[in-house]
Amino acid sequence: MHSKLPDVGTTIFAVMSKMAVENNAINLSQGFPDFPLDSKLVNLVSKAMQEGHNQYAPMPGLPALRQVIAQVVQNTYQKSVDADTEVTVTAGGTQALFSILQALVHTGDEVIVFDPAYDSYNPAIRLSGGVPIHINLKAPSFSIDWQEVEAKINARTKIIMVNTPHNPSGAVFTEKDIQELERIALKHNLIVLSDEVYERIIFDNKKHYSVLERPALANNSIAVFSFGKTFHATGWKIGYVVAPAALTKEIRKAHQFIVFSVNTPIQVALAEYMKTPEHYNSLGKFYQQKRDQFLSFIKGSSLQPLSCYGSYFQLLSYEGISKKGDMAMAEELTIQHKIASIPVSVFYQDKSDNKLLRFCFAKQDETMEKAGEILRKI
Amino acid sequence: MHSKLPDVGTTIFAVMSKMAVENNAINLSQGFPDFPLDSKLVNLVSKAMQEGHNQYAPMPGLPALRQVIAQVVQNTYQKSVDADTEVTVTAGGTQALFSILQALVHTGDEVIVFDPAYDSYNPAIRLSGGVPIHINLKAPSFSIDWQEVEAKINARTKIIMVNTPHNPSGAVFTEKDIQELERIALKHNLIVLSDEVYERIIFDNKKHYSVLERPALANNSIAVFSFGKTFHATGWKIGYVVAPAALTKEIRKAHQFIVFSVNTPIQVALAEYMKTPEHYNSLGKFYQQKRDQFLSFIKGSSLQPLSCYGSYFQLLSYEGISKKGDMAMAEELTIQHKIASIPVSVFYQDKSDNKLLRFCFAKQDETMEKAGEILRKI
Ligand SMILES: CSCCC(=O)C(=O)O
Ligand SMILES: CSCCC(=O)C(=O)O
Repeated sequence: MHSKLPDVGTTIFAVMSKMAVENNAINLSQGFPDFPLDSKLVNLVSKAMQEGHNQYAPMPGLPALRQVIAQVVQNTYQKSVDADTEVTVTAGGTQALFSILQALVHTGDEVIVFDPAYDSYNPAIRLSGGVPIHINLKAPSFSIDWQEVEAKINARTKIIMVNTPHNPSGAVFTEKDIQELERIALKHNLIVLSDEVYERIIFDNKKHYSVLERPALANNSIAVFSFGKTFHATGWKIGYVVAPAALTKEIRKAHQFIVFSVNTPIQVALAEYMKTPEHYNSLGKFYQQKRDQFLSFIKGSSLQPLSCYGSYFQLLSYEGISKKGDMAMAEELTIQHKIASIPVSVFYQDKSDNKLLRFCFAKQDETMEKAGEILRKI
Repeated sequence: MHSKLPDVGTTIFAVMSKMAVENNAINLSQGFPDFPLDSKLVNLVSKAMQEGHNQYAPMPGLPALRQVIAQVVQNTYQKSVDADTEVTVTAGGTQALFSILQALVHTGDEVIVFDPAYDSYNPAIRLSGGVPIHINLKAPSFSIDWQEVEAKINARTKIIMVNTPHNPSGAVFTEKDIQELERIALKHNLIVLSDEVYERIIFDNKKHYSVLERPALANNSIAVFSFGKTFHATGWKIGYVVAPAALTKEIRKAHQFIVFSVNTPIQVALAEYMKTPEHYNSLGKFYQQKRDQFLSFIKGSSLQPLSCYGSYFQLLSYEGISKKGDMAMAEELTIQHKIASIPVSVFYQDKSDNKLLRFCFAKQDETMEKAGEILRKI
C-alpha cells in the first residue's frame, strides 16, 4: 500500500486516550471536559429531535444558527458579518480547517505553520496539495519572531495559519502579534487562517486578539471556532467558520462535498441556547479557576509548570528529572503512574523534544486532585 | 479568486431545497423523509446525552457500535469483518466517500465513475488529485456495458466507483454486474469503491449485490453505508465504511484529520438500537409501498415513470411534453406548479439532458397525494 501519508500514524489523541483507557489511567491527554454540560442544552437537543428536526440542515448551516452566530460575533468582536454569505457551520473545528485548506490551497502553494501545532494542520495542508512551511516556537514563551516569519515568505506563500489561544502551549497573541500578522499579511497578500477555537478560554485579564477585529484583514482572513470547546460537548462535533463572502463561497464548495451538512437537532438547539450570553461569557473565569486548582494540586511536584494564559492545557516540564524522550515519559506516566498526558514533541514536525508534557485541566476538581496526588510523587 | 473547482456551483440539493422553501413548493427534490423516525431511537439519543456521553468518541467510532455493525454485516452478507480494523464510523456517506478518495487517490490516478452519478463523486476525486473517468449510462435501463468499462482501463486506473441501488435511477446491480465487476477489478488490480447507502431499499424481490459478499474482492473492495437512509434521520449525518484492514488503515489516516470523530450520543444510541433487526429489516417493503403509492397518485399524468427497483427516487420522463431543458423544467415545476424535483442532467458530467426529473418518494402519503394532484395536471 503506497500511502499518501506514509509518515503519519494514528493521531496522538486517539493513541493516548486508548492507552489511558487500557491502563485505567486518569486521562489528562486528549482535550475534553469530564464534567457534564448544561442540561438545558441537552434538553434543547432532545426537544429538537422530538419536534422532528432530524433531516438534512441547509448545507451552509441552519439560518437561525448562522444569525445567532453573526450576532455573537458582533457583540464579541464589534464586527458585522453577513449570516448568509460569511458564516458556515461545520462538523467541528478540525473539519473547518480541513475544508478551508482543501478549498483554497492549490498544488505547490506554501502554508506557514507555527510549531508546536495541532497535529491535523500538516497532513491537511499536504492532502490539499500544499507545502507546509514550519516555524518552530520555543519554550517557555512560544513567542513568534515576525522577522523570521517574513524571511520565510516568497511568491508561493499563500496562507499563514495562526492559533490563539494556543494549543498546546497556552500562549496567547499580544497586540504586537496581531499588528505584525496584519502588516505581513497585507504586505505579502496572504490569507490568514486563524484557529480561535479557545477564543473564550483566556486568563489573567489577557485579551483575545481575533482576526475578526481587524478591519484591514476583512478581505483575507478566516476565523475558526468550536462549539464543543465553548459548551463542554466535544463529542457533538460542531463548529463554524467566519470568512469574507468570496472565500466562503470557495470554502462551501469543498464543505458540501466533504460532509454536505451538520447535525440538525444540535443546530436547532444551539440557535436557541446561544441567545443567552450568560451561557458562554464567563468561560474564561471558569477555566482560570480550573487552571489555578490544577496548579495548586501539583504544588510540590518536581514537574515545573510553564505559563498558561489560555486554552485548557497546562504544560509541565520534566527537564532535569529524566533524560527520557517525552513520548517514553508519557507512556511511563500512563502505564506505571496511571496518568495520561500528551508529549509535546508530536506537535513539532521535526519532533523537537523539550521534555514537556501537556495536561488537560478541563476536569472536575476531584479528577485533578487525584492527578495532583500522582504528580506530586514524581 | 482562482478556484480549485471553477466549474462547481452550489450542490443541486441545496439549490432545489432552497427554491422549494422560497416558493412554498412540495419538496420532492433532495432525498429525505418527511415522516418522523422511530421515537425509540430519539429517546436513546436523549438518554445517551443525559448519561453524559458527550465528549469525543474514539476516532474510528465507538467500539460497541462497530461491533454491532460487524454483527449486522455478518447477518446480512455472511461476511465476517473485524470491528477493530475493518469498520470506521463516518459523518455520513458523503464524508465516507470523501475520506476514502483523499486517502487512496494519488495525483494522476484515474477513477472510473458511472453517470448519472451522485454529484460529490467528481469533485471529491478531483480534490484528491485524481482524474475522474466518466462512463455514461443510458435511460431507461441505466445498465452498464462492461466491455466499454474494460476499454477505459489503463495503467493509471486505480479505483472503480459503483452505486447500487442507484441514485438517481433506481437501477440495481444484477448478478452478472457483480460478476463482471469482480472479474475486471481482479484482472486489472483495481479497488472497488461501492456506494451502498440504499442497501436495504430494494423492491420487487430483487437482491442487493454487495461487494461484501464477494470473497474474491475481500482485499480490494470498500463498501459505504448510511444510517441516515436506513433510520430516516438524514440530518444526523452518520454512516460507516467497511474495508479490509490495509485500506482501513489509510482511510483512517485521512478520516482523523477530516473530522476526527463522529457525534458520540448518536453512536451510543445506534449501538443499542441496531441490535434489533426489526428496526431495519423491513425497510424494502416499507419503501416499495411508498413507491407504489407514488405511482398510483401520479396515474393519469403525462409524465412517464421509468422502472425503479431501489433507492427512494422515482424518475419521470417529460419527453414529448416539452422541449425545455430539464433544469428549466424543474424550475418551472417548482415556481409555477409548486413541486420541486431534481433535473437528472446535473448527474452527468457532460450534462446529458434526457428530459428526466427525479422525485423523492420518502414522503408521507398525504405529501405524495398532493404531489400527485399537481403532477396529474401537467
Ligand atoms: C480531536 S481530539 C484532540 C482534542 C484536542 O483538541 C487536543 O487534545 O488538543
Ligand atoms: C446530501 S443532500 C442529497 C441527498 C441525496 O442523497 C439526494 O437527494 O440524492
